[in-house]
Amino acid sequence: MSQTPSPDHHIPARDEHIHTSWSRDHDPIRTVESGDVVRFDCRDATNGRLDADSTVEDVAALAGTLPGHALTGPVDVADARPGDVLAVDLLSFDHEGIGFSYFYGGDEGTGLLPEEFPDPGLHVWDLDGDVGHFVNGIDVPLAPFPGNLGVAPADGGEHSTTPPRRVGGNLDVKHLTAGSTLYLPVEVAGARFSIGDCHGAQGDGEVCVTGIEAPMTVTARLRLVSGMDIEQPQFETDGPFSATDGGRVYATTGISDDLMDASKKAIRHMISHLHRTRGLTRSEAYLLCSAIVDLKINEVVDAPNWVVSAYLPQSIFPE
Amino acid sequence: MSQTPSPDHHIPARDEHIHTSWSRDHDPIRTVESGDVVRFDCRDATNGRLDADSTVEDVAALAGTLPGHALTGPVDVADARPGDVLAVDLLSFDHEGIGFSYFYGGDEGTGLLPEEFPDPGLHVWDLDGDVGHFVNGIDVPLAPFPGNLGVAPADGGEHSTTPPRRVGGNLDVKHLTAGSTLYLPVEVAGARFSIGDCHGAQGDGEVCVTGIEAPMTVTARLRLVSGMDIEQPQFETDGPFSATDGGRVYATTGISDDLMDASKKAIRHMISHLHRTRGLTRSEAYLLCSAIVDLKINEVVDAPNWVVSAYLPQSIFPE
Repeated sequence: MSQTPSPDHHIPARDEHIHTSWSRDHDPIRTVESGDVVRFDCRDATNGRLDADSTVEDVAALAGTLPGHALTGPVDVADARPGDVLAVDLLSFDHEGIGFSYFYGGDEGTGLLPEEFPDPGLHVWDLDGDVGHFVNGIDVPLAPFPGNLGVAPADGGEHSTTPPRRVGGNLDVKHLTAGSTLYLPVEVAGARFSIGDCHGAQGDGEVCVTGIEAPMTVTARLRLVSGMDIEQPQFETDGPFSATDGGRVYATTGISDDLMDASKKAIRHMISHLHRTRGLTRSEAYLLCSAIVDLKINEVVDAPNWVVSAYLPQSIFPE
Repeated sequence: MSQTPSPDHHIPARDEHIHTSWSRDHDPIRTVESGDVVRFDCRDATNGRLDADSTVEDVAALAGTLPGHALTGPVDVADARPGDVLAVDLLSFDHEGIGFSYFYGGDEGTGLLPEEFPDPGLHVWDLDGDVGHFVNGIDVPLAPFPGNLGVAPADGGEHSTTPPRRVGGNLDVKHLTAGSTLYLPVEVAGARFSIGDCHGAQGDGEVCVTGIEAPMTVTARLRLVSGMDIEQPQFETDGPFSATDGGRVYATTGISDDLMDASKKAIRHMISHLHRTRGLTRSEAYLLCSAIVDLKINEVVDAPNWVVSAYLPQSIFPE
């Protein structure tokens, strides 16, 4: 982090720099040169609706009321044209000591298992350097990344910030850590890059619908790349690939003829495992899965049954 | 490996020790005590139909003619009862210096992208200690595991060895390396454990339908565990979690409203990337993806679009 270059631009998280939809029609707040380094101050995805004193009642009050992820931008890159590729070199992240994991529950639920969680859940994280504190002495290593970053789609009008698209957006790729580079296909002149929804950590899958949602400052270099032809985003990273890098994991398989059902089974089995062996409530287990448990596709060819497994690092538990 | 205990039993890969279906009615070839260590000699999944001189024509001749994976067993564990859990401690693997990656192509294809590969493909691997040699100077680190291991299902009759089930079978979980433990729900008296289909390495997904298929000797401890209640297999492992542990990867995203389609997109993009940037034929790229590229579920909650990415370790390429 100490080698992060001084930014050429700083975009504070003022109201006029925040938007909650994707659109080619959002006016750019700055035009930068290819290769410039930009410091983006990012609110959390809820736009500051939660704080250290928030309760599950506050989460319930959020349900259905958020216009979209609070994104900082857009920033234009001079000379960017449709068909170009924008490389985003993610250089550093600085959190503010607090983060939130939550789910709405029930029909508002979203998440992988809404039918099993009718009520909302919340954990307010104390982010302590490079560790986040959970319950029961469980500490989660932080590996900050932006959940939502992309360029404007060519299609006119306003678009939801929830689904990811070929121009990026809500990718929730947890490996987009400091030192990574994301490649995005440009669809409009200037590219119109925005970023936000930073996470202190997240499991592959983000199963309860949130990672460790946290306001952060992101420093990134934006540069145009020639000679690439990509259909959807691509990226380079050194990881970490999981909190398990190098350590023991406990894993639960989900076996099904449908990958989504296999994913649900794997997480259901992991929630039961955490409840039985670690004394977590099922709500706590669901939140922890979303923050730290990784979904991997083991095989997708042994018809008619596929295997998805959920991987729990053992190093997060106290001795 | 040097600490592998001497086996209490040795099951050579003789014809009478090989079966190619799962069935509770296969007579056990040995009954062992809980805690015994067994050395299983395993043929490759094709039952020896390929060798160092095999060509794609031999692969074409295989299509549709294999009765099932060649499995060594079954071995009964004394006192195992339905409802018990059998723990399989995987202690060591020894290959014989050769392995095979292949796909049939076309309608016989199976694999993730049969429609894009009408013709068969084959790579005969020289397995050299803990490395497998591919083309163009590419070396793949080996991390041997059994693709197919399990206990007999309670349902009578003979069952295909292709789909994995709650009693295990063709799980193709590449993390079941030496030092791992697999937990299997027992459905019949004695458990009736069998093992085979060893792989020198495999990417998460096994996208072309084969890993590095190789005859091997596996040493494992079989032990009954009390007090566990599992619906589908679970396991513990130290990895390696990928050939990328600690190194740079290049990744291609697949964004779709269906996880299978997202997986296909990610692999299609990776095949194009390997073809363009590394000079591989598309067939070589597909084989390499199956041996070394990992499919991870990045998010499964940002409706209506999910993200699956394919991860390629850069360390396999020559400087």
